[in-house]
Amino acid sequence: MTMLKVALIQQRCGDNRDENLIKTAQMIRQAAASGAELMVLQELHTSTYFCQVESPTLFDLAESIPGTSTDTLGKLAAELGVVIVASLFERRAAGLYHNTAVVLEKDGSIAGIYRKMHIPDDPGFYEKFYFTLGDLGFNPIKTSVGTLGILVCWDQWYPEAARMMALAGADLLIYPTAIGWDRLDTAEEQLRQHDAWFTVQRGHAIANGLPLLAVNRVGFECSTEQPDVGIQFWGGSFAVGAQGEVLTKASHENEEVIVVEIDYARSEQVRRIWPFLRDRRIDAYSEILKRFRD
Amino acid sequence: MTMLKVALIQQRCGDNRDENLIKTAQMIRQAAASGAELMVLQELHTSTYFCQVESPTLFDLAESIPGTSTDTLGKLAAELGVVIVASLFERRAAGLYHNTAVVLEKDGSIAGIYRKMHIPDDPGFYEKFYFTLGDLGFNPIKTSVGTLGILVCWDQWYPEAARMMALAGADLLIYPTAIGWDRLDTAEEQLRQHDAWFTVQRGHAIANGLPLLAVNRVGFECSTEQPDVGIQFWGGSFAVGAQGEVLTKASHENEEVIVVEIDYARSEQVRRIWPFLRDRRIDAYSEILKRFRD
Repeated sequence: MTMLKVALIQQRCGDNRDENLIKTAQMIRQAAASGAELMVLQELHTSTYFCQVESPTLFDLAESIPGTSTDTLGKLAAELGVVIVASLFERRAAGLYHNTAVVLEKDGSIAGIYRKMHIPDDPGFYEKFYFTLGDLGFNPIKTSVGTLGILVCWDQWYPEAARMMALAGADLLIYPTAIGWDRLDTAEEQLRQHDAWFTVQRGHAIANGLPLLAVNRVGFECSTEQPDVGIQFWGGSFAVGAQGEVLTKASHENEEVIVVEIDYARSEQVRRIWPFLRDRRIDAYSEILKRFRD
Repeated sequence: MTMLKVALIQQRCGDNRDENLIKTAQMIRQAAASGAELMVLQELHTSTYFCQVESPTLFDLAESIPGTSTDTLGKLAAELGVVIVASLFERRAAGLYHNTAVVLEKDGSIAGIYRKMHIPDDPGFYEKFYFTLGDLGFNPIKTSVGTLGILVCWDQWYPEAARMMALAGADLLIYPTAIGWDRLDTAEEQLRQHDAWFTVQRGHAIANGLPLLAVNRVGFECSTEQPDVGIQFWGGSFAVGAQGEVLTKASHENEEVIVVEIDYARSEQVRRIWPFLRDRRIDAYSEILKRFRD
């Protein structure tokens, strides 16, 4: 296989889990009808972004893997003959939760999971309260549509994460994400933040000679504690090729199903003209494993 | 110090070493008159880009450090009271040469050197013939205008290099470079290449919360072996801030002296809203020291 049609499913979420999943399924069906074989969902797509506040009762949103959501999505994957990258709030044990991506194969089985490794904690994004650090490392998941280097949201700022996936043979980097603007920031700051998010991920594609998909949620979600405060999720889901060239980019306002073709063969070509992997100074990087070189 | 005026010196080079250095000096004087305190020169600015061919006689271009060029530039630095980042073809011993950046302090002394760590070798860029791999590691150089994380050209594609400099306390990332287009490539390919080069470096600024300067040569230089073949150096020297925001960008055609102000205090602010260094998974990166994870 060299060409693969992938779908970016950018959606708005509400408080009703079933309604969110029904809409997701509709969007996946629409993408399958357009010939997409790989469906990428945004981060934590079964709910609103609950990490805006720290509340013990919100752990009720978590579920086991395998569980209800993987059953539903697995059946859909099997029915349509597609691969689905889902993103769930995983309950691993009482008091032990993860932010976990799950890949459903074309036969409905679970091809693999990735537990988010880098966990943020910032005003409005209190993820360290909810999610334990991932403990499965940076390992791509082999599927019938390629070896998928799946990372999640905050991971997207870390070149180390993308590199680890590339070194392990990923064909494609994939980032389900949930990022947005603070409405109190200036328009200039909002622009800088979005552009930085877009640019740093394009940089990972370039540095590793790999295509990359990022799927983000869209719409305003208010904080349950302060209704006038919240996050304006900026959408802007995108796909780039192995030179970081932009293949498609979604709007900042709307739900969208974007189907785009990825050319796996381009990585081979691009890495021949830019053989970065050949020249890495692995003899001189050891201190990258330090917190700081002081 | 929080604000620093820096100068990007983007020039065209010819075969006469003295003429190249005279022009460089003129451009530095012009920048100093505009208040710049840090001058960044392009890669191998005393000559044309000789690595287009492999020729043993071209080792004659190399010089010792300290040597003639550092004497000339050191005197200029002292006269003007500025710091200069130069890039020289270093002769370390018979048969042992490096591509070396040298920092001249305001008193004319050598503040430190950096020997290019990642060495390319591609058609028209036969650097592995000329340059031994740098053996000084990724260590920023302390100066009166900040701690400078100086890397050179091919290094710019490696996130590890920028990260190593950031972890060692660099205030600013600096890339003297010599990169251009193959005229036989399509306009689309040329656009992709330039954009990838620009984007991956902006990505390093973002991932590390540091401002970044890249200074590239400009003009067409033909190969001495095939006069109709050569490299169209694409200029486009630029400066970005700690969120990767573009502060200035030179043309693709002209020699330019661009003076731009860098705000060191922004790194502190940006790293507070995006505390990437806080959350690095240094417990899980060890295989980044492998050639490939197979």
